[in-house]
Amino acid sequence: MNAWWERGDLCFSNGLLMFADRIVEDLARQYGSPSFFYSARRISENIGRLHTALGGAGFGGNLHRVNYAMKANRFAPLLTFLKTTGLCMIDACSPQEVEHAISCGFRPDEISFTATSLSDRDFDRLSRLDGLIMNCDSLYAIQQWGERGAGRSIGIRINPAVGVGRAQNELLQYSGGRTTKFGIYREQFEEARGLAARYGLTIERVHFHTGCGYLTPQLPAWEKVIEECLWFIDQLETVKTVNVGGGLGVPHVDRDEPLDLGLWAGILKNHFLSRKLKIEVEPGDYLVKDAGLLVLTVNQVEKKKDTLFVGVDAGFNLAVEPAVYGLPFQPVPARRREGDEIRTTVVGNINEALDIWYSDIPLPPMRSRDCLSLINAGAYSSSMSSNHCMRGEFKEYLLL
Amino acid sequence: MNAWWERGDLCFSNGLLMFADRIVEDLARQYGSPSFFYSARRISENIGRLHTALGGAGFGGNLHRVNYAMKANRFAPLLTFLKTTGLCMIDACSPQEVEHAISCGFRPDEISFTATSLSDRDFDRLSRLDGLIMNCDSLYAIQQWGERGAGRSIGIRINPAVGVGRAQNELLQYSGGRTTKFGIYREQFEEARGLAARYGLTIERVHFHTGCGYLTPQLPAWEKVIEECLWFIDQLETVKTVNVGGGLGVPHVDRDEPLDLGLWAGILKNHFLSRKLKIEVEPGDYLVKDAGLLVLTVNQVEKKKDTLFVGVDAGFNLAVEPAVYGLPFQPVPARRREGDEIRTTVVGNINEALDIWYSDIPLPPMRSRDCLSLINAGAYSSSMSSNHCMRGEFKEYLLL
Repeated sequence: MNAWWERGDLCFSNGLLMFADRIVEDLARQYGSPSFFYSARRISENIGRLHTALGGAGFGGNLHRVNYAMKANRFAPLLTFLKTTGLCMIDACSPQEVEHAISCGFRPDEISFTATSLSDRDFDRLSRLDGLIMNCDSLYAIQQWGERGAGRSIGIRINPAVGVGRAQNELLQYSGGRTTKFGIYREQFEEARGLAARYGLTIERVHFHTGCGYLTPQLPAWEKVIEECLWFIDQLETVKTVNVGGGLGVPHVDRDEPLDLGLWAGILKNHFLSRKLKIEVEPGDYLVKDAGLLVLTVNQVEKKKDTLFVGVDAGFNLAVEPAVYGLPFQPVPARRREGDEIRTTVVGNINEALDIWYSDIPLPPMRSRDCLSLINAGAYSSSMSSNHCMRGEFKEYLLL
Repeated sequence: MNAWWERGDLCFSNGLLMFADRIVEDLARQYGSPSFFYSARRISENIGRLHTALGGAGFGGNLHRVNYAMKANRFAPLLTFLKTTGLCMIDACSPQEVEHAISCGFRPDEISFTATSLSDRDFDRLSRLDGLIMNCDSLYAIQQWGERGAGRSIGIRINPAVGVGRAQNELLQYSGGRTTKFGIYREQFEEARGLAARYGLTIERVHFHTGCGYLTPQLPAWEKVIEECLWFIDQLETVKTVNVGGGLGVPHVDRDEPLDLGLWAGILKNHFLSRKLKIEVEPGDYLVKDAGLLVLTVNQVEKKKDTLFVGVDAGFNLAVEPAVYGLPFQPVPARRREGDEIRTTVVGNINEALDIWYSDIPLPPMRSRDCLSLINAGAYSSSMSSNHCMRGEFKEYLLL
C-alpha cells in the first residue's frame, strides 16, 4: 500500500526512497546533510497544471499570468530556471526581492509587486524600475507612488473583509474577522479612487489575497471572497486584470485532499470570463512546496519515558512551519528498514521545547546515521531560515 | 506618571526617550533603522544583581558561576565585552557557538556546553577542545563522549519531569506534562550511571533547565522542580556542582512584576548550601533582554475600519518573540508628540497576517518618519532573525 504522499517522482522503490529519479540516500551520501533538494520537473508540472486549468476555463494565452511568489523560495538557481524556461513571472514583496529577481534574469515588467508598510527608501528604489507592475496596498502607497510619478498605471490591493485559508488555521488568514493591515477596505475605496485621480493614475488591476493553504473544502468560502471583491471591481471601469493572489494549498497530512484545480478555475470562469478580465494568480506553496525535500541525518535514537525520540541534524530554525504555523512535515526514511512501525517523535537539535518535526508518527525502526527526509520542504523553509543557536548551515540543490 | 518599563537608563526626559544616556532619536538619525542598540551598563547591572544575590545567599566567590546563554544574543562585541570585563562565563549549545565564543576571546574551560541531538561531527569538534565543560543530555551523549575519551569529568542534564516557565505559555516549558527530548529521566538514571562508569567518567555536575521566563509567582513551582532534582543529586556522591539552568524572566507587560532575586537565591540556599554544592546559573533573557532596544522608523499611519495601523520598517522576522511565543514588545515613541493617546496596532513590513508587533495599545499620535522603538529586544531577536521576504537587514550597536 502506498503512503498518502507517494507519487511518480517521490516514492519507494525496492525499499529505497526515490526523488526526481534519484536515490535519496545517494544524494545524502554525496552532498551531505542538512540539504534541501528541489525538483525542477515537479515545479514545472505544478505550474503546467495551473496553466492548463486556467486555459481550460477560457483564460487561454494572454488571458492569464502566473506570478511565482518568490518569498516562498528565492534560491537563485530556481529563479533562473523559471525565467529561462518561461514558465512564469514573479510576485515580489520587497525592493530587495525585486532586485534579486532581476539579478536572476527577470525584467521589471515581469515582476508584480505587492507589499505593505513601505519606507521612503523602498518607494525610491521601486520607482526607478521601468515597467515594474505596482499594486498599492494602502492610500499612503497610492499617494507615495503618485508623488514619484513612477508610472501611470497601478493596481490596488483590496481587502474584502472576508478571508479563507487552511482549515482551522487563523495564522494563515489575511482578511476577515479581525481587521488586518492588508489592502484597501470598502470604507477607503472612494478615497483611493480620488487619490489615484489626483495623481493621474489609472487603476488597471485589482489584487486580493486573503489567506494561505486553502484546499478543495475551502473553495466555497473562496468563492464568497471573490463575490465580495466584485463590489470593488464592478465600480472600476478601468480595470483590465484581476489578481486573485496566492494561497493555493498542498496536502500536509494524510487526510488532506489535493486542491481540485478544475473547480478552482471554474469559479474564476463564472465570475470573470464574461467581465473580460485577465486573471493573475500568485502561488508560492502550490508551485514549490511539494517539489522540495529536506534531507537529514539521524543523530540519536533514544526512548525517554513513553516516547521514542529520533533526533536529527537540523532544527526548526531551518524550516519553521511546524513551530510557527503548526504545519507538520511528514518524515520519510530514505531506506525502509525491516521491522514493525513504531510510534516516533522526530525532533531537531535546537535547545527549545517547540523544536519538534513531527510528534507521535508511526515510522519503521531508525538508527543513528540513517538518512531521514522531510517532504513538502520546498516553500517557506530555507527562505525563512535563521542562524538560531548557530545551527543555520544548510545546502540547497536544484535537481534538473 | 511613569510607564511600567521606565527606569534610570530608559525613560522620557523633556518628552524625549533616553536610553543608556543617549537620546534615542539621535541614535536613529545618525545610525539608521532598523537598528538594535545594546546597553553594556545595563547588562553589567543585570549580571551584578545576580552575583550579589548568590553571594548574599552564601554562594560567595568561587561557589557560584554565571554562564551567559549566548544563544540569546551572540553579537560579537557584546561577547568580547563580557569576556574582557570578566563578568561571566558562557553557556553554549552548538559547536558553532562554542567556536564563536572562543573567537570572541573565551577559553574552552570558560564555556559550559549543553545540547541535544548531536552528530558525530559535533562530538568530534567538541572533543578536540581542551577543558570544555560538557553536560550530556542523553545516554547516547555519555556514550559518544566516553568513546572519544575527551575528558574524565562530565555533567548530566537531567529531566525532573516537572517544569516551570512563563505563566500560561506552554511553548516555554521544557519539562513536565508531555515527555520532552531534553535530559535524562529517572527511568534512565541507572543506565546513565552505568555508562559513565563503563567509560571511566565522573559525573561532577547535575544540570537541569525546565522552562523560560519564570517570574516571582512561579518561584514555588520552581522550588518543586529543584526538589525533584534532589532525587538525582543525592544519589551522586561525585557531584560538586549543580547547574540550575536559565529561564529567569523579565517583565514583558505592565502586569508583570520583576523576578525577586532574593527569594530566588533563598531557594537555592535552602537546598544546596548545606549540600556544599557550587551553583551554576545560565540566564539569557535576564542578562540581555531589557538591555536591548530595537529602533525603527514609522513608514505609514493609516486607519483601516476600526483599527489604526502604524506600519514600521521591520517585521517579525527580525524579532520573532511576538509571532512565535506570543510575547509582545512594548512600543515606545522616541518623542512624545502632543495629543491624546489613541489605541494603535503596530505592524511590520512583512506580507503575513502574524506580522504584528503589538495589538491595540494606547500610543500618542504617530506620523510617517517618526522614530519608534521596541523595548526588551536584547534577547532572542537578532540571534533568531531571518531574511524572510529579504527584509533581513539590520544593524547592531553596543553602547559602552
